[in-house]
Amino acid sequence: MPPTTAPDAAAEGSEAVVDLLGVLAYGELSAFDRLADDARLAPGLAGRAEMSAMAAVEFGHYRLLADRIAGYGVAPEQAMAPFVAALEAYHSLTTPSTWLEAVVKAYVGDGMAGDFFREVATLVDNSTGALIREVLTEAGRAEFAVREVQAAVAESPAVAGRLALWARRLVGEAISQTQHVLADRESLMLLLVEGTGGLTGVPALITRITDRHAERMVELGLDS
Amino acid sequence: MPPTTAPDAAAEGSEAVVDLLGVLAYGELSAFDRLADDARLAPGLAGRAEMSAMAAVEFGHYRLLADRIAGYGVAPEQAMAPFVAALEAYHSLTTPSTWLEAVVKAYVGDGMAGDFFREVATLVDNSTGALIREVLTEAGRAEFAVREVQAAVAESPAVAGRLALWARRLVGEAISQTQHVLADRESLMLLLVEGTGGLTGVPALITRITDRHAERMVELGLDS
Repeated sequence: MPPTTAPDAAAEGSEAVVDLLGVLAYGELSAFDRLADDARLAPGLAGRAEMSAMAAVEFGHYRLLADRIAGYGVAPEQAMAPFVAALEAYHSLTTPSTWLEAVVKAYVGDGMAGDFFREVATLVDNSTGALIREVLTEAGRAEFAVREVQAAVAESPAVAGRLALWARRLVGEAISQTQHVLADRESLMLLLVEGTGGLTGVPALITRITDRHAERMVELGLDS
Repeated sequence: MPPTTAPDAAAEGSEAVVDLLGVLAYGELSAFDRLADDARLAPGLAGRAEMSAMAAVEFGHYRLLADRIAGYGVAPEQAMAPFVAALEAYHSLTTPSTWLEAVVKAYVGDGMAGDFFREVATLVDNSTGALIREVLTEAGRAEFAVREVQAAVAESPAVAGRLALWARRLVGEAISQTQHVLADRESLMLLLVEGTGGLTGVPALITRITDRHAERMVELGLDS
């Protein structure tokens, strides 16, 4: 079933849509930057090339978003500017110190952000929603993360507990920075609250995202 | 006139060709890594996005080279391994400390490496030569570098002298690491010496590369 768009969805080119594209664009540009950096933590050239490939894909997504923003007559830098501080804070508070932390961040952290924005994609016009779903594909990332984490846990079971804690930290920082962004950008807060039906809608959305996060942790074998 | 291939060119899949693809592949992977890193030196999001785009392009080139190597039944990691130390040495000895140094490195340093490999491309089979020429395109990089450097020099003429010195350092380190690689890899040394016609050919090749380098410095206004 294709995702449905709310009947009173935010309109193409509206302030809320440009804000949404701006936060997504900076999200992709900073994901590119961090994945490229984290790739250096790989134990060998094969893993490094795999994570570098993810970075290159994120850059392609950035380009699509920046082009869309420019199409509305807004400079991408300007649309991204309000979100730089929150995303940089998230990344600097969750800088991986090992390859496995980098792998878990690329799957769990980016995955949860993707779930959130896919929810938001149902609250905007169809054209924007389609673009958001396009740039949030996570093709192959699950297989990659499961393979790397399971191999490491098989070799040293104590790794699982440390990575589970790390994932919890990623979730905490992601929630914290999302709250900062929403408190700062009224257009996005309104989009979310009005689009989901307000008092009942937002908690339901959070439950869906939390459930999907728990599924990822099970897939990685980090749910104990 | 299309580039000509020497009649006694190294054959597809030969040791020299796999070595050549290996050094190019690691060159692209490390260029991706360094450009992504150097993009953080940009004074604004627009410049950062431009240098990140160059990094993403280099990753695409890496992928083409790695696929070709794998097609010969060789693991790309294995083909790249002999060249990691020399390329890492080059990059760590030429880590830019300013945005303009990064810009000059992306144009002058990568440009000279490209000239060298385009020369080598004429010494191997046609299919390998075509792939090498494909991955060495520098579309748009000259315009980008000229714009950034000219703007900076216009504002502060003393910058020109410092950047000219920096470019000289890039050339020196590039030559030094190329010599290390050739001393280590007999297949590449033979390819170069036999392919160019030996004692007369190599100096002529060096002259062509030096001339092209001098042209780039003129383009940048750093030739005084």
